[in-house]
Amino acid sequence: METSTKHTWRSKLHEIIYEADTPTGKLFDVVLLIAILASIVLVMLESISAFDAKYHDFLNISEWIITILFSIEYIARIVSVKRPLKYVFSFYGIIDLLSTVPKYISLMLGGTQALVALRALRLLRVFRILKLARYLGASNQLANAIKASRAKIAVFLFAVLIAATIFGTIMYLVEGEENGFTNIPKSIYWCIVTLTTVGFGDIAPATPLGQFIATIIMILGYGIIAVPTGIVSAEYTKASENETGKRLITDEEVEQLKTVIRNTQSCENCLAEKHPDHSHFCHKCGHELHHD
Amino acid sequence: METSTKHTWRSKLHEIIYEADTPTGKLFDVVLLIAILASIVLVMLESISAFDAKYHDFLNISEWIITILFSIEYIARIVSVKRPLKYVFSFYGIIDLLSTVPKYISLMLGGTQALVALRALRLLRVFRILKLARYLGASNQLANAIKASRAKIAVFLFAVLIAATIFGTIMYLVEGEENGFTNIPKSIYWCIVTLTTVGFGDIAPATPLGQFIATIIMILGYGIIAVPTGIVSAEYTKASENETGKRLITDEEVEQLKTVIRNTQSCENCLAEKHPDHSHFCHKCGHELHHD
Amino acid sequence: METSTKHTWRSKLHEIIYEADTPTGKLFDVVLLIAILASIVLVMLESISAFDAKYHDFLNISEWIITILFSIEYIARIVSVKRPLKYVFSFYGIIDLLSTVPKYISLMLGGTQALVALRALRLLRVFRILKLARYLGASNQLANAIKASRAKIAVFLFAVLIAATIFGTIMYLVEGEENGFTNIPKSIYWCIVTLTTVGFGDIAPATPLGQFIATIIMILGYGIIAVPTGIVSAEYTKASENETGKRLITDEEVEQLKTVIRNTQSCENCLAEKHPDHSHFCHKCGHELHHD
Amino acid sequence: METSTKHTWRSKLHEIIYEADTPTGKLFDVVLLIAILASIVLVMLESISAFDAKYHDFLNISEWIITILFSIEYIARIVSVKRPLKYVFSFYGIIDLLSTVPKYISLMLGGTQALVALRALRLLRVFRILKLARYLGASNQLANAIKASRAKIAVFLFAVLIAATIFGTIMYLVEGEENGFTNIPKSIYWCIVTLTTVGFGDIAPATPLGQFIATIIMILGYGIIAVPTGIVSAEYTKASENETGKRLITDEEVEQLKTVIRNTQSCENCLAEKHPDHSHFCHKCGHELHHD
Repeated sequence: METSTKHTWRSKLHEIIYEADTPTGKLFDVVLLIAILASIVLVMLESISAFDAKYHDFLNISEWIITILFSIEYIARIVSVKRPLKYVFSFYGIIDLLSTVPKYISLMLGGTQALVALRALRLLRVFRILKLARYLGASNQLANAIKASRAKIAVFLFAVLIAATIFGTIMYLVEGEENGFTNIPKSIYWCIVTLTTVGFGDIAPATPLGQFIATIIMILGYGIIAVPTGIVSAEYTKASENETGKRLITDEEVEQLKTVIRNTQSCENCLAEKHPDHSHFCHKCGHELHHD
Repeated sequence: METSTKHTWRSKLHEIIYEADTPTGKLFDVVLLIAILASIVLVMLESISAFDAKYHDFLNISEWIITILFSIEYIARIVSVKRPLKYVFSFYGIIDLLSTVPKYISLMLGGTQALVALRALRLLRVFRILKLARYLGASNQLANAIKASRAKIAVFLFAVLIAATIFGTIMYLVEGEENGFTNIPKSIYWCIVTLTTVGFGDIAPATPLGQFIATIIMILGYGIIAVPTGIVSAEYTKASENETGKRLITDEEVEQLKTVIRNTQSCENCLAEKHPDHSHFCHKCGHELHHD
Repeated sequence: METSTKHTWRSKLHEIIYEADTPTGKLFDVVLLIAILASIVLVMLESISAFDAKYHDFLNISEWIITILFSIEYIARIVSVKRPLKYVFSFYGIIDLLSTVPKYISLMLGGTQALVALRALRLLRVFRILKLARYLGASNQLANAIKASRAKIAVFLFAVLIAATIFGTIMYLVEGEENGFTNIPKSIYWCIVTLTTVGFGDIAPATPLGQFIATIIMILGYGIIAVPTGIVSAEYTKASENETGKRLITDEEVEQLKTVIRNTQSCENCLAEKHPDHSHFCHKCGHELHHD
Repeated sequence: METSTKHTWRSKLHEIIYEADTPTGKLFDVVLLIAILASIVLVMLESISAFDAKYHDFLNISEWIITILFSIEYIARIVSVKRPLKYVFSFYGIIDLLSTVPKYISLMLGGTQALVALRALRLLRVFRILKLARYLGASNQLANAIKASRAKIAVFLFAVLIAATIFGTIMYLVEGEENGFTNIPKSIYWCIVTLTTVGFGDIAPATPLGQFIATIIMILGYGIIAVPTGIVSAEYTKASENETGKRLITDEEVEQLKTVIRNTQSCENCLAEKHPDHSHFCHKCGHELHHD
């Protein structure tokens, strides 16, 4: 019965790796989370040349430990899953592989800059553990508000891009290369820096006319920053109303509610009130009504 | 029947150029869109001096191809339209002509900077193809919100301008020419850079007093950035309510709705209240009620 | 009857200067508005040293013309008003005098910088002509929203100031004089520049720890920029509801409206409905009700 | 009876120091507030080296006066309170001690930078006097809005941090050390500077690709600045509704309200509709109605 015990062993591994309901499963998630964050911190520390020069060996060994841990985890994932190929070519399967290989590649090819990018991809693995996507989905109000505003914000950003292109060309002509507006793409870049109120100041208009146009761009940006905010704000209010089931009343409903009440006639005969508008006869005793 | 076939040929051309319902019409629009965007990219690339130096011939030939395409399109538009003069002097007619001529002018006068501006005008042609104006108009909520807020935002921007002028003059006096506030218009420019929270940093206060006043300006700007946002947000909510027909209830309507319920009868026998209107008997003890 | 004609002449002058209902009154306002704006433009142009050097005479003569015009206007205002002293010591009376005197003072004392400030005060006179204060007051929604938010924004700004002082002291200790944080007031200035997202960049943290703290300050600023915006936005919505008379419904009103409707009992005897809750007898025929 | 008078004297001291209801109590609070603010101003002035050089003696003496005042106050607080140890180890007790000791420490150890931090802690004492915490708590709407949005803003900020890390790594690879992106943490710092639209400009992208990515980051930041604003704005509106008791109507309530009116009777004689409930006669022709 070797296969059976192997099967049991495999399903247990699956439970530990893919589920978070058991204590071991939770522990696995926590350890993995720490390993991922540690690997990200390593990438950051390595990029600081002073730190790298001093603690190169420590960084190297740590990266090897993490690489070996990730390798074991990757193999365990393949072994424990029913359809290994499906996992290997899934989104997280590819991310897992790419997170594991950089150190092996650097053995063969030497450390290149591109490997840093691969290692930074490990951050995406955090999403699986924290189930962030699901959590964000759960906060329905926010998700719905953004979803509902998406199209409008797209139209809006498109308008911003066209404005940036036109103003960028104008600023290139007005300021010219001597003031840092060396070409139109750079001018458009400056325009977006200004419209979004970031304002690095690496490029800044120097001529009076350029500064005047910049003023217009800034006030425009100041005015239009209100638009996406207003959209999200209003959509969020709406989404929040839908969720609580509370809502505004419609014109039609108010009309319906009012039909009962609108009339001030009272019957001479039986003193009945609440006749519909333009009633000719009392609804209670049938006596003819005299209009005021 | 030469004129007749010519007429048919002409009306077909009109269909292709001015309408987008037929496959050929759609194809024409797509080709034109690509040509316009390509011509804009050419203008951008040409402005990058390193690129221009290396690929001058390629840029020159591409510009000629686009110019010839635009020329053919311009002539085709004149030929196919019923009243050519009306088209020639229309907004898009003038834009089309200005989009076509720069290369011809450069042949005669040599390439000048002003021609770049003419070529950048081609971007406006995108609006006709994408029918952007119409699309923006269709998103009624956004358009209505902006329309409704227009006057208020104008008043608001006017107040910003006056504040900028007053603070600009003060900063000119406090900081003076040695700290970059060389004259009042430049000082006002700096003030708007600060109020809009852009903050290039090309000019920055250096004296303690100047920095103190700058602090006030910034906090002011921080506070007033809320105003246009609040306006658009509230107007957008209102516009959105109008569109769905849902709305808030008025005081008067609540009063009307409540008249049904305002029965002040109380039973002589058991003193019970809240009888429905026109009750004949007490709902509690069954005693007959006397109407007031 | 000399005094009588003089009186008529005086009241006519009053009508022209202080009222805007007659054509001459309107013309006077327009001319004055142009003169004020022209005088502001003159102050600006004079501050541009290149322009001042070239057109000094033109600026000098223009300033004299405007000064004489303002002098005549000032005298006319005193003459035509019933209680001249009240006018002279009123807010606008003082502004009018200060707007007029700078050129006379410069004759005696020579042109000093402080006179520029006096001349810039002329801008305040625009408010009287445009009746801006009244206009702003008329747009009740905006005014009410700002008024209603005033206290909250004040509390909020106070919190911002305390945060700026604490973070400013920390940054002074962390970054020190060598990185531009020369003293605590300057450090607080930098903190407000950062919290308001202006970010001049004249001072910027250079140490890793300083940059880390700056990150916290920025994210804090990013988060709290939402607060005044949210306040104004919500208050504006409320103010806008109050103006249209439309409003949300209160809990109590819903309760009142529902009392009529809540009961589904119908009388066995006469089939009457809409009995109040816990009715024992039919309100129409007095027949005893059986509870469901 | 010496202990008794001592007790009375002690309870009077307690009243003055810990309560603000009596005139002496109020005076004590005002004097203390002035002393605290004065001590903060002293810390600021001392940090300005030019000022410190000139008025070193004045600053030194003032600090001694304030230190002695705070010492007396600290001793008085211990003496007048019932359980002195509880006060000494309370939050404000520790703050009070730390506010008092810096000058004594500097006598022993000489003035160090760390003492400045201790002295800046005095600002926290303002909270006790102004009862700011309580005041902020009283403005329920604002507090509730922030409390209700807290979780969502946290998720949001977490997403911003992940975006900053990923874009920071990309920018480090694209721009490299020669353009100021010396390491990944610095690159992430730049990313947050850009996303929050602060934009110091101490580091700015110099390569075309880096500027293109920066454009995406800025537009992203521009788009997402809307999210926390929208959240706070909507939550504030809700909190404000809860406080006034006004609210939106629920679907269910509208249904209930409409049941009154849903009379489906039509007159056999003239086919008139919209009779009030329980009508006996048609309001149009007076014909008797038969109930369904």
